[in-house]
Amino acid sequence: MGAHYTLEDILEMEPHFRGLFVNSLSGYKSANLIGTVDKNGHTNLSIVSSVVHLGANPPLIGFIQRPVSVDRHTYDNITETNVYTINAVSEDIIERAHQTSARYEKLQSEFDCCDLRPEFKSSWPAPFVKESPLKLGVSFQQEIDIELNGTKLIIGKIEHIHLENSEVIAPDGHIDISRIRLAAISSLDGYSIPESPVRYSYAKPNVPLQQLGK
Amino acid sequence: MGAHYTLEDILEMEPHFRGLFVNSLSGYKSANLIGTVDKNGHTNLSIVSSVVHLGANPPLIGFIQRPVSVDRHTYDNITETNVYTINAVSEDIIERAHQTSARYEKLQSEFDCCDLRPEFKSSWPAPFVKESPLKLGVSFQQEIDIELNGTKLIIGKIEHIHLENSEVIAPDGHIDISRIRLAAISSLDGYSIPESPVRYSYAKPNVPLQQLGK
Repeated sequence: MGAHYTLEDILEMEPHFRGLFVNSLSGYKSANLIGTVDKNGHTNLSIVSSVVHLGANPPLIGFIQRPVSVDRHTYDNITETNVYTINAVSEDIIERAHQTSARYEKLQSEFDCCDLRPEFKSSWPAPFVKESPLKLGVSFQQEIDIELNGTKLIIGKIEHIHLENSEVIAPDGHIDISRIRLAAISSLDGYSIPESPVRYSYAKPNVPLQQLGK
Repeated sequence: MGAHYTLEDILEMEPHFRGLFVNSLSGYKSANLIGTVDKNGHTNLSIVSSVVHLGANPPLIGFIQRPVSVDRHTYDNITETNVYTINAVSEDIIERAHQTSARYEKLQSEFDCCDLRPEFKSSWPAPFVKESPLKLGVSFQQEIDIELNGTKLIIGKIEHIHLENSEVIAPDGHIDISRIRLAAISSLDGYSIPESPVRYSYAKPNVPLQQLGK
């Protein structure tokens, strides 16, 4: 049976229920681990489901930082060092990645606590996640305050890409992320591993779409 | 075999290749149709893969508007009327939803051109997509310019939710969007239908995670 909820219904929901419910409404989300380090060399790792593509040229990528009163280690490290990494969560590290959302103390590294290995390469000062099949080295560009709810859009430029298996790149540039077993997140705590996608041709008015070969 | 790309490599890519490639890097994306109407009653429908959850209380949702020189019907209608709808793309409307990305003229409605039906209900002035199993009525709150590349973050508040099947809501508020067959997008043109997710318990330091029952 169908259901209709209004804004008033949402505002009256029990907070934990509302969190799971409203987080379900936007659909599937990417699963990524953000790696940072402070100026004393303490590493930090945090799972985020709000990474969003902003543009290809230059390659810009964003994520939503929750109010910094709640969770500020990642934010502090990014604004202190101007670098971070974005590491895709794949099937075999879902549980360890989810565990990084626990509230560890500042000097406890989630790498150690969650059994993931920091990897420094390409002379990039922020730690990659060794176990991730798709790792981005990102330079901090700008933070934009969203005053409506105290969140921030953190914008970075992609400076390095490390892809575990270059065979998943099609001749036209499309990466089949299902073949490196990336996870999609639903709501706050649901993880799926989608199968290989169906691709459609570039849409034009009055021209039937074609499915593209794999 | 592994591959390493630098920013310089990305900037030198052929533009079509770069678009598909860089759009793959953020992982899975939500698939939604944004419905709008202008003050003369002309409807518009546009697929977006950049819808992002911003907060649950109040329920705020954003999407990235490409430079308005490229695609401005949706943007013009939202800023003219202050209302829009966000409609999840499910398995049976993927092809019609993808076709809305073709460049139709301003007075051609993608509803008509792409065989999707506008539905007006809950006294909401913007058109929902009748075929979508999860439809949001959204009020425009704010636009934030991202000067780095001429895009905008469009922020709205969720005022109405229409869910086709209320049985997919768990007692704790989690919506199993796989049971309404929602699509996930990869890169610019790949569509997958994930299966039911594995859910994990709220993470706490030094407490083993539990899988939650379905």
